[in-house]
Amino acid sequence: GTAMPPTCACASPLSLRSKPSPHFHSHSPGLRPPPSLDRRPQVKRSGVSRPRSMGAKLGVPRAAAEETVATMTVTVTTTEQRAGSIGSKLPGATHESCVYLDYNATTPIFPEVAAAMEPFLWEHFGNPSSGHAFARPCKTAIDTARVQVADMLGCDAGEVMFTSSGSESDNHAVASAVQHAVDARGVPVPHVVTCAIEHPAILEYLIAEAAAGRLTFTAVGVDAAGVVDPAHVAAAVTPDTCLVSIMHANNEVGAVQPVAAVAAAARAANPHVLIHTDAAQSCGKIPVKVHALCVDMCTIVGHKIGAPKGVAALYVKTGTPFRKLMHGGGQEGGRRAGTENVLHIVGLGAACGLVEREAAELPSHMAALRDTLQQTLTAELGGDDGVDVRVNGPEDDSRRLPNTLSIGVRGISASALLASLAEEMAASAGAACHTGEAAASISGVLTAMHVPEEYAVGTLRLSVGRHTSAADVARGAALIVAAARAQRVELAALPEGQRPAWCIKNIFSRRGK
Amino acid sequence: GTAMPPTCACASPLSLRSKPSPHFHSHSPGLRPPPSLDRRPQVKRSGVSRPRSMGAKLGVPRAAAEETVATMTVTVTTTEQRAGSIGSKLPGATHESCVYLDYNATTPIFPEVAAAMEPFLWEHFGNPSSGHAFARPCKTAIDTARVQVADMLGCDAGEVMFTSSGSESDNHAVASAVQHAVDARGVPVPHVVTCAIEHPAILEYLIAEAAAGRLTFTAVGVDAAGVVDPAHVAAAVTPDTCLVSIMHANNEVGAVQPVAAVAAAARAANPHVLIHTDAAQSCGKIPVKVHALCVDMCTIVGHKIGAPKGVAALYVKTGTPFRKLMHGGGQEGGRRAGTENVLHIVGLGAACGLVEREAAELPSHMAALRDTLQQTLTAELGGDDGVDVRVNGPEDDSRRLPNTLSIGVRGISASALLASLAEEMAASAGAACHTGEAAASISGVLTAMHVPEEYAVGTLRLSVGRHTSAADVARGAALIVAAARAQRVELAALPEGQRPAWCIKNIFSRRGK
Repeated sequence: GTAMPPTCACASPLSLRSKPSPHFHSHSPGLRPPPSLDRRPQVKRSGVSRPRSMGAKLGVPRAAAEETVATMTVTVTTTEQRAGSIGSKLPGATHESCVYLDYNATTPIFPEVAAAMEPFLWEHFGNPSSGHAFARPCKTAIDTARVQVADMLGCDAGEVMFTSSGSESDNHAVASAVQHAVDARGVPVPHVVTCAIEHPAILEYLIAEAAAGRLTFTAVGVDAAGVVDPAHVAAAVTPDTCLVSIMHANNEVGAVQPVAAVAAAARAANPHVLIHTDAAQSCGKIPVKVHALCVDMCTIVGHKIGAPKGVAALYVKTGTPFRKLMHGGGQEGGRRAGTENVLHIVGLGAACGLVEREAAELPSHMAALRDTLQQTLTAELGGDDGVDVRVNGPEDDSRRLPNTLSIGVRGISASALLASLAEEMAASAGAACHTGEAAASISGVLTAMHVPEEYAVGTLRLSVGRHTSAADVARGAALIVAAARAQRVELAALPEGQRPAWCIKNIFSRRGK
Repeated sequence: GTAMPPTCACASPLSLRSKPSPHFHSHSPGLRPPPSLDRRPQVKRSGVSRPRSMGAKLGVPRAAAEETVATMTVTVTTTEQRAGSIGSKLPGATHESCVYLDYNATTPIFPEVAAAMEPFLWEHFGNPSSGHAFARPCKTAIDTARVQVADMLGCDAGEVMFTSSGSESDNHAVASAVQHAVDARGVPVPHVVTCAIEHPAILEYLIAEAAAGRLTFTAVGVDAAGVVDPAHVAAAVTPDTCLVSIMHANNEVGAVQPVAAVAAAARAANPHVLIHTDAAQSCGKIPVKVHALCVDMCTIVGHKIGAPKGVAALYVKTGTPFRKLMHGGGQEGGRRAGTENVLHIVGLGAACGLVEREAAELPSHMAALRDTLQQTLTAELGGDDGVDVRVNGPEDDSRRLPNTLSIGVRGISASALLASLAEEMAASAGAACHTGEAAASISGVLTAMHVPEEYAVGTLRLSVGRHTSAADVARGAALIVAAARAQRVELAALPEGQRPAWCIKNIFSRRGK
């Protein structure tokens, strides 16, 4: 967590009651200045109806801002635009009132991506399967996008199949491997190995297919940092195993898995095994090169990298046996039926182009902001000895996503805290899709990591991204600190018998309050 | 083909060498004038980058146009804007050079739909499953879109499930019915009844699942007009039948199926049978009300009604047993995993809103244009006795889609004709997804209807829509007539032994040339 951004957008530091941690707002000397003041799309007149407010919002200058949050005053002065549009402010009134620290749930559509999509919203619409003039721009755009995705993954364009979501890509990877084992190897009920902290798109699909008698599966555990041991995977592989699917990085705690080592161990145990990885969360944050990962299939997801929701891709290595999930027309080289989602495929391609172009800058931008968050929250809420907070995930930052901070704060309910801040700050307690559940239901990921309940209940998942600024992080940290302190005071005031169950082992009992 | 538009956009008729047929350019007297000259989205300044050409293109006035096409002069004067934006010109250079008569392959994104989508391209992006301020506009937009779809279908919003394509909706309907029969009724290998002219999303899925041993199916035939007999469906139903899936209207010939009668006959044969209809092509052209159709499940598709490619819906009647196809998160009420495609769902909702709003006007607009096409091509290419062309599909216009003309022209190859006109006119020979196949491979639909080879090879599928104008139709007809005549001359000049096989029974042998 010590990587610094190439330039720092904060001219004066956040004033908090406690002193900042050693790395807080340090500057890396000697880095090149931003090559351009503003590379956002040029403002032009348009012949198209747009919401009246947006033109004005896009032009909002990022000048000095003074904001009063709870009991603290936060002063942030931004004096320069960052290189490219990393860190730039996005349009929309919600950004004025609410800090977005939930990039792992979904990213904004990045402005460059939206600009690339516009012509396909208003002008180009032919069915790419048709043979006439209207089809050509759409067919060409899909070809271009496929090359952009392939360049990002380091594969051939023919190895990229577009899908409608990460869930579809994941489901399809499993379904294909299982059906191939039935057809070609005569395995009546194929076996799949995965891990306990996979996305529901893997785990729920395996559970459903297992219930229907079409496969069996083993989910290996993870260590306390959320990391899979390749030896455990290899030990789970049987002669009937057709697939090992281990995510590249975990969405909640950011743990990066040793995918290449897992692949090697699994193949040594059974050479028929295919390897799939879900790179939805790693893509755009750490390198995702399929040959380095040694995988046969790889899922990437548009709305985690600045493309819209509703588009994803599955890399399928040349020569890998493959079966259809969706049947109908001959689209995607006969691998996936359904008229192509041209608009979103263009967006996914553009987003992958940005990932490649900004591969050197964006991760360090995110890491610096994430580290600031981590240091501030630890300093403000960790207590004198720091033990009132606990960072979930690998301690080694090379094994953790640079944008993700999963931090357990003792003496609070994270979901209650987020609910109280819903209008001012966006973040997650556990995965986004768990939000509707009961407040004290601990996520499967934290459970698998054996995170103590007193920290798990107070775990916030904060995730930054391309358009997060130092001001956002300062404001978010201030909001969290104030709300957590208020909640601790409230809980401490309760008679001991009325405190929630997860409080019993928490900060108050430790302090004897 | 006698329906007239509420107002006619043609002030002076198309001048062709032969006399127009009796219904050609007749005017319906006494119809109200358009309530507004132009309801297209207002032109505003925008803060967003747009292709430079588009603003100008959107403002192009629809005034007198004189065009020289092949050997004929076509003069069309348009003196008024139609009500709403029905018939209005769309932006884009391709519309200047190429006539679009391929609405059944895909429609443009209608401008009102694109305008509804814009805020979700540039501004609103939260994950609808999240609990914070960024999620709310997206969650609300999905709720609104679901109501818009439900209003169009005449059902409850909770009965609408969003999917990524018609193929997914169709596949899912079958998969769900089959899995339910296995789970709840203990049928080991359930049976499905469909018809021979279904979309590949039904037929190819059934073939694949049957090959995997998971179901059996019967595809009943159609009559010469492409219509299914409910008695044939009932006769195919067995005690193991779990689903009858009969499309509402055929994409190639526009034949409207007696879905309600099919449903009644099938249920009488086996009360366990569920009824699904694929209404991809009927929606927006004839009423699609699920209670009138008496179906349990119904597919609709965005890119056939002015929404983008990559979004569709499946109506699932309350109480209908339902199983998941895609597993993962709890989206769509737990029926379909995958982060919601907010942008496209907004578009689908807006498109359904337009369908409802224009239900009285749009079908007659399309019917008038289609009838003009049919009458012109018949008059120009049918020969003195009219037998050199053959309209495929029901003669009764109440049983044929108002926008579709499948017309077999003897003495030509339709695919060769379309290839020669690829830069000037967009249409299909058979379904769009068959374009890549060998020129003389007759579509499954025409084969099932026993269309004679001499007409089938020359069959053009012309389909008009909301933004087709009388000028488009005139230009398209002129292009087809000129190209067909040229091709006939070319083929007639060949020595008899060198003519293609499908020529043997054709116009030349009849005429003894």
